[in-house]
Amino acid sequence: MSESPIKALFFDVFGTLVDWRTSVARDTRVLLEPLNIAIDWLGFADAWRNEYQPAMEEVRAGRIAYTKLDVLHRQMLGKILPRFGLEDLGDSTLAQLTMVWHRLDAWPDVQAGLGRLRKRFLVAPVSNGNIALMADLARHNDIHWDAVLGAEVARDFKPQRVVYLSAADAFNLRPTECLMCAAHAGDLEAAAGCGLRVAYIVRAQESPAASSAAPAMPLDLCVQDMLELAERLGA
Amino acid sequence: MSESPIKALFFDVFGTLVDWRTSVARDTRVLLEPLNIAIDWLGFADAWRNEYQPAMEEVRAGRIAYTKLDVLHRQMLGKILPRFGLEDLGDSTLAQLTMVWHRLDAWPDVQAGLGRLRKRFLVAPVSNGNIALMADLARHNDIHWDAVLGAEVARDFKPQRVVYLSAADAFNLRPTECLMCAAHAGDLEAAAGCGLRVAYIVRAQESPAASSAAPAMPLDLCVQDMLELAERLGA
Repeated sequence: MSESPIKALFFDVFGTLVDWRTSVARDTRVLLEPLNIAIDWLGFADAWRNEYQPAMEEVRAGRIAYTKLDVLHRQMLGKILPRFGLEDLGDSTLAQLTMVWHRLDAWPDVQAGLGRLRKRFLVAPVSNGNIALMADLARHNDIHWDAVLGAEVARDFKPQRVVYLSAADAFNLRPTECLMCAAHAGDLEAAAGCGLRVAYIVRAQESPAASSAAPAMPLDLCVQDMLELAERLGA
Repeated sequence: MSESPIKALFFDVFGTLVDWRTSVARDTRVLLEPLNIAIDWLGFADAWRNEYQPAMEEVRAGRIAYTKLDVLHRQMLGKILPRFGLEDLGDSTLAQLTMVWHRLDAWPDVQAGLGRLRKRFLVAPVSNGNIALMADLARHNDIHWDAVLGAEVARDFKPQRVVYLSAADAFNLRPTECLMCAAHAGDLEAAAGCGLRVAYIVRAQESPAASSAAPAMPLDLCVQDMLELAERLGA
């Protein structure tokens, strides 16, 4: 942690700050159980999330124009419905389902940890989620950002370089003055490739599919949660 | 105030929320008086601000690519220095001077008014200021935004339509669900032309040059300050 001082902290959101899997399973159940639907709720959340990278890849590869994650979430939902026998759900229910991603619960350490970190650093999400989604998640979890950066500002998706570089630029900072904090190796590798500093936050509980192995790369920090991150950064 | 309900409030910042003139004059004096410089401090603030519209017009007209207001502020400063006999100031002083725009004080009603409004509506600046500038002004004045929207997200300057429309889109809202709040007729006319609702906030004290006449157009609201805005919107 030598070199120029860190001035801003950037956060991955899905998995790193919020527990998408349990939240999506729970809220999907709340919406569909009254319709006499009984499915594997966690399996449904996993299947939906599995469409995430292929959907964004269409944009990253330039095959379609930048499209908000809210719109992609709705398209991804359409793809998995037949697998769960849900192809007859109406548009209104599908719109409500898509909004469960706006009400994901943060991991228990996030609100307090971010509150401490915010006193010392600029803080922003650098997520593939769109601005409306990030704003709703912040309200839902009582999080206070300095700005919502990430995919919608950059008009592309991580791990494209423009997303990290436009975030640093938005705060008038050099990449090395920014610390990317994430629970996923690919995100940190891309950020480090752009010159950002990197902090790995272990979230072994995210999902069975998500890798809980520490990234095979030099890390500026490796912490168990946001409270340890605050501690290590003197916040 | 009939039609669809208002869900988000967008705010012009310079003049509407913050007192740029007194703040720039004061902080410029703090920086330059120790260098044995004595000029008309308010006149200096006015001269600097007078370069604002011509500088942005270069971008709006497509003659130069989108350029952050921080960069334009520095260029505008260069233009007025000779008029005040300040052409010998060093780069470090000029960089410090440019940052006075990041420390503008809000009008006295803003913090409390926005705090009330935020409980009921999404709130965001839709300013020609860049994201870093908006984030610093929010910190300086203890303001909590849901997101920083406006020029840098739209990559153009008000009153270009894309700035208002991209702000509504960022919150997944139709223009008519958004209320643009500003102290300047041109801003409100452009917003109304995009389908947004409009609230005029009277800021007769902004500067002698700024028009304090109410816009000659239909207004959804006309209020004296942010507390009256909160009152009128039931927040």
